[in-house]
Amino acid sequence: MNKHGIILFGHGARDPRWAEPFERLAAKLRGARGDQPVTLAFLELMSPDLPAAVAEQAAAGCDAITVVPVFFGQGGHVRRDLPKIVDRCRAAHPDVVISCATAVGEDDAVLEAVAGYCLREVG
Amino acid sequence: MNKHGIILFGHGARDPRWAEPFERLAAKLRGARGDQPVTLAFLELMSPDLPAAVAEQAAAGCDAITVVPVFFGQGGHVRRDLPKIVDRCRAAHPDVVISCATAVGEDDAVLEAVAGYCLREVG
Repeated sequence: MNKHGIILFGHGARDPRWAEPFERLAAKLRGARGDQPVTLAFLELMSPDLPAAVAEQAAAGCDAITVVPVFFGQGGHVRRDLPKIVDRCRAAHPDVVISCATAVGEDDAVLEAVAGYCLREVG
Repeated sequence: MNKHGIILFGHGARDPRWAEPFERLAAKLRGARGDQPVTLAFLELMSPDLPAAVAEQAAAGCDAITVVPVFFGQGGHVRRDLPKIVDRCRAAHPDVVISCATAVGEDDAVLEAVAGYCLREVG
């Protein structure tokens, strides 16, 4: 049976509490996707990094992986660093189709939800 | 007439395209809030910084300002850097009530929207 994994790719931070929303997001997705893998990966300061996360999903039998950058803006990390890392992952796992989404902050429904939060906060 | 401003506080980046979702978010909020100010401020690499944004809203007649950290996780920038900057802003503008929201990524509706985006991306 084919498996299609999702890797939520975040920046990483020194404070472990920083990752809490990413863990909650992964839990939501796991609930929605049954036995399809959903894992986290980080650019720096936290582990695993993206190559390790891809290797883990490949070892678990994924023949397709979608990397979703959980960033608001698409700056150097998403436009320059991430494609280089993804290229290395593709070279290491030529049998796995690895695709990369645009950053979640570019999605209009995400921005609508953020706007709704701001409006609730300001009352 | 009292004015209550919103300041969307982001990290900042070298690539000016990074700020595009923040601009779109500000535009959505301006559409919803009439003549109440909605502006951006950045921790580093972009301008204005938060003290400049607060000074501008105070000069525009705001007697209340809500700062919303547009971050997913609450790490050192939100837990340590931001409160220090907000304290300086409060000292500089004692007549303005400055409040600070939790990071937008802690909001469940925001995480639901991000999860929905991920599910659409993976098909």
